[in-house]
Amino acid sequence: MSEEKTVKEIKEINIALLGLGTVGMGVYKLVQRRKNELPRKIGCCVKVKKILVRNAYKIRDGVDNDLITDSWDEILSDDSIDIVVEVMGGLEPAGTYIRQALEAGKNVVTANKDLIAEQGHELLVMAEEKHCDLLYEASVGGGIPVLRPLKQCLTGNNIDMVLGIVNGTTNYILTRMTEDGMEFDEALAKATDLGYAEADPTSDIEGYDAGRKLAIMASIAFNSVVTFKDVHTEGITRITSTDIRYADAMDCVIKLLAVGKQEEGQVSANVYPMLVPKNHPLASVNDSFNAVFVHGDAVDDAMFYGRGAGELPTASAVMGDVIDISRNLLQNCTGRVGSTCYRNLPIKPLGEVKNCYFFRLQVEDMPGTLASISSVFSKHNVSIKQVIQKPAKKHGSELVVVTDFVKENDFAKTLDELRTMEMVYEISSVIRVYA
Amino acid sequence: MSEEKTVKEIKEINIALLGLGTVGMGVYKLVQRRKNELPRKIGCCVKVKKILVRNAYKIRDGVDNDLITDSWDEILSDDSIDIVVEVMGGLEPAGTYIRQALEAGKNVVTANKDLIAEQGHELLVMAEEKHCDLLYEASVGGGIPVLRPLKQCLTGNNIDMVLGIVNGTTNYILTRMTEDGMEFDEALAKATDLGYAEADPTSDIEGYDAGRKLAIMASIAFNSVVTFKDVHTEGITRITSTDIRYADAMDCVIKLLAVGKQEEGQVSANVYPMLVPKNHPLASVNDSFNAVFVHGDAVDDAMFYGRGAGELPTASAVMGDVIDISRNLLQNCTGRVGSTCYRNLPIKPLGEVKNCYFFRLQVEDMPGTLASISSVFSKHNVSIKQVIQKPAKKHGSELVVVTDFVKENDFAKTLDELRTMEMVYEISSVIRVYA
Repeated sequence: MSEEKTVKEIKEINIALLGLGTVGMGVYKLVQRRKNELPRKIGCCVKVKKILVRNAYKIRDGVDNDLITDSWDEILSDDSIDIVVEVMGGLEPAGTYIRQALEAGKNVVTANKDLIAEQGHELLVMAEEKHCDLLYEASVGGGIPVLRPLKQCLTGNNIDMVLGIVNGTTNYILTRMTEDGMEFDEALAKATDLGYAEADPTSDIEGYDAGRKLAIMASIAFNSVVTFKDVHTEGITRITSTDIRYADAMDCVIKLLAVGKQEEGQVSANVYPMLVPKNHPLASVNDSFNAVFVHGDAVDDAMFYGRGAGELPTASAVMGDVIDISRNLLQNCTGRVGSTCYRNLPIKPLGEVKNCYFFRLQVEDMPGTLASISSVFSKHNVSIKQVIQKPAKKHGSELVVVTDFVKENDFAKTLDELRTMEMVYEISSVIRVYA
Repeated sequence: MSEEKTVKEIKEINIALLGLGTVGMGVYKLVQRRKNELPRKIGCCVKVKKILVRNAYKIRDGVDNDLITDSWDEILSDDSIDIVVEVMGGLEPAGTYIRQALEAGKNVVTANKDLIAEQGHELLVMAEEKHCDLLYEASVGGGIPVLRPLKQCLTGNNIDMVLGIVNGTTNYILTRMTEDGMEFDEALAKATDLGYAEADPTSDIEGYDAGRKLAIMASIAFNSVVTFKDVHTEGITRITSTDIRYADAMDCVIKLLAVGKQEEGQVSANVYPMLVPKNHPLASVNDSFNAVFVHGDAVDDAMFYGRGAGELPTASAVMGDVIDISRNLLQNCTGRVGSTCYRNLPIKPLGEVKNCYFFRLQVEDMPGTLASISSVFSKHNVSIKQVIQKPAKKHGSELVVVTDFVKENDFAKTLDELRTMEMVYEISSVIRVYA
């Protein structure tokens, strides 16, 4: 759009939707639903001018079919379109479309975590050069306001930690395992039945989805670019109902956490299941709800909670971005807040990250077992916080150990050595503990 | 400041602090702490240019005494001051200063809930006319981002409910009563010892403080002016440990809730203690923490949680506002988001509000008591959800009743009639139930 437009000329903001899946339909519906109020609320109309789909000939119920097009060029060359709302997902062609839109001076809203987690910074810089907005609130935490609060409300802080339950599927599975005593496979089947898990659930249950969201959050929280490849991810497939019961006995629940930290001039970004004390606010985030917990040097602890997915919650976040840009268009100040990654902090290698560990071993039941095992711990500087030993179901003993903070590298060496010991039959589970 | 200033000219944003109490000191410290980063983070310096205090001759440790002044005119007439940060509190002279600052084209940040809850709309309209920003994130929920998320991120929603635990003192008291079995007086004494309660705790324990914050939140959430006088407030002074134990047995906790609702074209805004089910996210908000829970037609449920008071948490919110305005100054777009109260919804009278009730009676222990009492309920259209009757400590029985939703007026009539009955010795407690 031309830079000459002034407040008075713009009475109608035109948007183009790229994609008409779940989120696209949600945005379309929400724009219709707010049609009459927006002029009074923000001083202009917001209108869906075009909708890009793959098959333009399919009849879509409840959608004005005149808006449908299968030609991206038609949208790109339409100067009346102020905002491109990309809700098709995936790296391509979404990435190319967004770049071309920015190049043409159009503002962009996207819900695309895959793209932002990999190319967010590059796209933001491009938007900045063009004095355009590129907003992506919906890419993390669905409807929950997370990115704007981090980037604007909390920007007076030095944020040193961001902890998220940002994948609804795995949180639903872990909640069923905790509340109903299900095993992982059964809970996953239930999540699939209810439509919470996709046909191929890999991205959710292996933590990739959470990893992408963590990359996006961490970049904003720590003002330094973190991409998906910087994030170490572990999923929840190995969590058993036995682990959940032990966690419960220790007044903890097991959650898949996206853990971003800034310390000693480095950033770490890791996704793994953790034991979380029941009195921590994240412990009561259940079912498919999401939450993001942050710590800043001024604000102390804060948490944002809500629906991490779904047609209308996600559309709520997209609409918030569309309205933000509309307000900027009215004031001629698009590009008001661009990239805030002014630091260039190195990524801390996983091996250097410190964690507490819960682990469960099946061991030989004879005098000296505990002593031998303990000596392996002390050799690798692993100090023990808690030990439970009890007879195993079949033979031998089950040993449950909770460690103090230990470097991931040192702990890995400890495990390696334990695996070579004859008296250790099995290492049944290894889960980090949030402390 | 003059309208001719362009992006390139502004390299330094000057602020004046009005007041140097707890929050003022927090803001001063935080501005110093972020001094070196802000140019890279937001593209300009933020500098405290003047600090207005009552006694300019007092030496203040850690503060540059050259900045101190006791002359408001000196600040008002200083054209280099872009933002006035009012952290003195109270209606006057704060109100006059803010009006004069806006009149002079200065932007304003305030943490003053008393003032905003009474005159917020009028001040916002004034700011709008002057194309100035008036931001007040710190007035509700301390450091927690609440107002900006409501006004910007969730603005695509029709919000029908906002529920807040927005007073840390009463939440601390209720937490001690719940977790440690204290009575109200003991818990209040502890809160006073720890500095959570003021010497005169009336405003906190009677719900006035929460009422002011509710007026501010409700105005934004429902896009309609709600002032403190529109809010009905009840405090927590009559809550006993017995009530807390009954609540616990019913899987509830008691919280002082600020309840704003928009229904049937009306707004209701009330503060009272309520039984909250333990599985509700607000139930686990303990100690002096605050949280605001909202429901919108698109986002569904969302919650914001954190520190509702304190030097640095409150300063965090003030800094967020200062930085927001600084970004607007750099883009020449102050006044970007003004008042969003475009509706003019009537306030629903308390008597018309529907609630569920928990109440506890001491009654005569004889056949027919329950029948007589029940007939009073049905006469006033009060339907009963749960009854517990058990022998009272001294004589007679204790009767605990939980009702379905009933209009406040009908319930009041029921209570009036119960009070006239000889078989009712005492109405020991009446507490609403969040359902």
